[in-house]
Amino acid sequence: MLGLCMHQLQAQNKIVVFQSDFGLKDGAVSAMKGVANGVSSELKLYDVTHEIPAYNIWEAAYRLEQTVPYWPKGTVFVSVVDPGVGTQRKSVVLQTKAGHFIVTPDNGTLTLIAQSEGIAAIREIDEAVNRRQDSRKSYTFHGRDVYAYTGARLAAGTISFEQVGPALPDSVVTIPHQPATLQGGVLKGTIAILDVQYGNLWTNISADLFAKLNIPAGGKLQVIIYHKGQQVYQGVMPYAHTFGDVPLGQPLAYLNSLMQLSFALNQGSFAAKYRIESGSDWSVQVKVR
Amino acid sequence: MLGLCMHQLQAQNKIVVFQSDFGLKDGAVSAMKGVANGVSSELKLYDVTHEIPAYNIWEAAYRLEQTVPYWPKGTVFVSVVDPGVGTQRKSVVLQTKAGHFIVTPDNGTLTLIAQSEGIAAIREIDEAVNRRQDSRKSYTFHGRDVYAYTGARLAAGTISFEQVGPALPDSVVTIPHQPATLQGGVLKGTIAILDVQYGNLWTNISADLFAKLNIPAGGKLQVIIYHKGQQVYQGVMPYAHTFGDVPLGQPLAYLNSLMQLSFALNQGSFAAKYRIESGSDWSVQVKVR
Amino acid sequence: MLGLCMHQLQAQNKIVVFQSDFGLKDGAVSAMKGVANGVSSELKLYDVTHEIPAYNIWEAAYRLEQTVPYWPKGTVFVSVVDPGVGTQRKSVVLQTKAGHFIVTPDNGTLTLIAQSEGIAAIREIDEAVNRRQDSRKSYTFHGRDVYAYTGARLAAGTISFEQVGPALPDSVVTIPHQPATLQGGVLKGTIAILDVQYGNLWTNISADLFAKLNIPAGGKLQVIIYHKGQQVYQGVMPYAHTFGDVPLGQPLAYLNSLMQLSFALNQGSFAAKYRIESGSDWSVQVKVR
Repeated sequence: MLGLCMHQLQAQNKIVVFQSDFGLKDGAVSAMKGVANGVSSELKLYDVTHEIPAYNIWEAAYRLEQTVPYWPKGTVFVSVVDPGVGTQRKSVVLQTKAGHFIVTPDNGTLTLIAQSEGIAAIREIDEAVNRRQDSRKSYTFHGRDVYAYTGARLAAGTISFEQVGPALPDSVVTIPHQPATLQGGVLKGTIAILDVQYGNLWTNISADLFAKLNIPAGGKLQVIIYHKGQQVYQGVMPYAHTFGDVPLGQPLAYLNSLMQLSFALNQGSFAAKYRIESGSDWSVQVKVR
Repeated sequence: MLGLCMHQLQAQNKIVVFQSDFGLKDGAVSAMKGVANGVSSELKLYDVTHEIPAYNIWEAAYRLEQTVPYWPKGTVFVSVVDPGVGTQRKSVVLQTKAGHFIVTPDNGTLTLIAQSEGIAAIREIDEAVNRRQDSRKSYTFHGRDVYAYTGARLAAGTISFEQVGPALPDSVVTIPHQPATLQGGVLKGTIAILDVQYGNLWTNISADLFAKLNIPAGGKLQVIIYHKGQQVYQGVMPYAHTFGDVPLGQPLAYLNSLMQLSFALNQGSFAAKYRIESGSDWSVQVKVR
Repeated sequence: MLGLCMHQLQAQNKIVVFQSDFGLKDGAVSAMKGVANGVSSELKLYDVTHEIPAYNIWEAAYRLEQTVPYWPKGTVFVSVVDPGVGTQRKSVVLQTKAGHFIVTPDNGTLTLIAQSEGIAAIREIDEAVNRRQDSRKSYTFHGRDVYAYTGARLAAGTISFEQVGPALPDSVVTIPHQPATLQGGVLKGTIAILDVQYGNLWTNISADLFAKLNIPAGGKLQVIIYHKGQQVYQGVMPYAHTFGDVPLGQPLAYLNSLMQLSFALNQGSFAAKYRIESGSDWSVQVKVR
């Protein structure tokens, strides 16, 4: 019965979703998709984004967390943000307990998704077999020659998950980050990411934790933001269900599409106005006013 | 017989085409496509653009007008430019007389396509049934939880057009805009949009109306451009069939790919050189010189 | 037997890959894909890039060279960088000896791929039959009305390669460019392109030619870069297998994913720091130090 269950968990669905810091201005993403089509023309190829800032592993981790759960079980993700290409970082495939596969260098990219979906199994890619033919002399494009190729073969069922390579212990390389906490009525957390298109600030404080403040819609919050411990913003804003609940240009706190506490200006950019960025250096304190 | 005809009009073709102001830097578009794949892995998912300037409903309307007619009958479009998310604007599906479906907030996005393709029927999305499970608490991402989900279900045939929700009267919210006119030998219209990649100016003056000036290729036009009634450009340029008909950097009038009167500099940016933008504030007068 | 072989060479695979200088901000690319879906809903549509700098035929040629070889035989490419639209340049389909098809204006776009994959045959598009219906009056969007339409019909098997139009002589319009040479221990070549996302410099000096310097990994190279004959950079850097072999910010020489000699700063932008661009005006000299 367990075997049957595991089999259902593992069934790939011929969908491959790519993510990278390559941008879309050159042919790198297209070369990866060409290789995948060469493996099987039955694959369906999609993207998370290729506009991850260069070498920004934290953001790669965050974008996976933001999108993987919305794709069907069995989808294979290929994430290539790989400043250590050619060094000793391992190339792996993570199978999550939710049934997704993620092909990536194990360099921190799996920090968040391994925690939220759980680790079912991890295997190291055996490049002796899972590497595009005639690519031995090229040291710099593992994304095409190893990750896209292996992801496509796994998604197409050309290889099973076991044939990726040897099993590894159930842990991944993680990036240290401040977890969200509530103590003495004060919520603490980090500005996990910017909603870059709009300049909104997304924290790592979940709706469930925020709910413990017991604040109704329209209630006022005091928000303080720190960069490396230095206060850079302090303000009072309502907790609102929708941007239209505050006047144009005014701040609000709300729950974003990932159900995490966020801050915005109605039709303005909070990040640009107050020069706020994201990452582990940026922390936040929130309490009822 | 009418029933048969209507049935042919309604047949969805499993293609969904997305448009938004989300940009491609985060995972929002990917989450929508993941949800669509969860509805049916047989769907084919494409895009108009996700680079609509934030909250710019006019441009969303224009991009639909520019692209919808070139897609096969039965294609479902999902357009999410939605500054009023969470407010009282209705979520609707328009079926055009040309046989396209458009899933969108009814906030002006349908202004142009409803006029050019005609309204066959409009239904309001019944969120009690047409909303992704477990998304009740999230107030801010209708694009994923309602529009992409409903568009995918409609395209896949999981629901019929009737099952979208209750029928609405045959009208849509429209953005006021100056129609093109010809009076006393003077064409009037608006700079409807910029061909942003090249800096060309596209008006809303159709080839048919322009033809009434009876000007041959190579004939000279006097063009005056106004911003809020103030003249910002005046010049004389030939009506040309191709950019190469004028020297590098020189202006020309031509019919664009939508068969509307447009102005350009050969291998230059008219918009940048004369600081001209687009929208209802920008008007133009054209006459034979 | 030859006939059989030729037939295998020609078999299209229902994949169309688009490239242009249209950008992704408007609906032009979507209109092309809509037209292709109208030809056949069985096609699979992908992209090289649509961010070719406006009118930059050299870069269009380079992106094809970079990506075409990684796609399966029988793939049809549609490349539309066409500053001469409407003039006398020919619209053609190149069949390469490697079995790829490229639909494009013959304006230099085929310079590199015709050389690297070889010319099997070239045919001129007969617009009397291979042009979208009702597009006769539009002079400016051949990408949609001729190239996408013909590429889709060819990929779908609606027309054979022979039905594209009359055969042309086996030659293409080419852009003059400096070939890579080795003389007296000095390698000469051009900065063929920037790896724009990272600011790396990619030359046209192949790994095979570079190998004749007989330099081991870690060996030092003297690199001089000229713009129109004026020296703009001189430095010494190691030949490295991976960026991590040099300290942060330091220069290295390496073989890129196309197996061509390249220069980079580890986690920095060589192009930005030394204001170096690419193209036939930018040359390089390399010798062992």
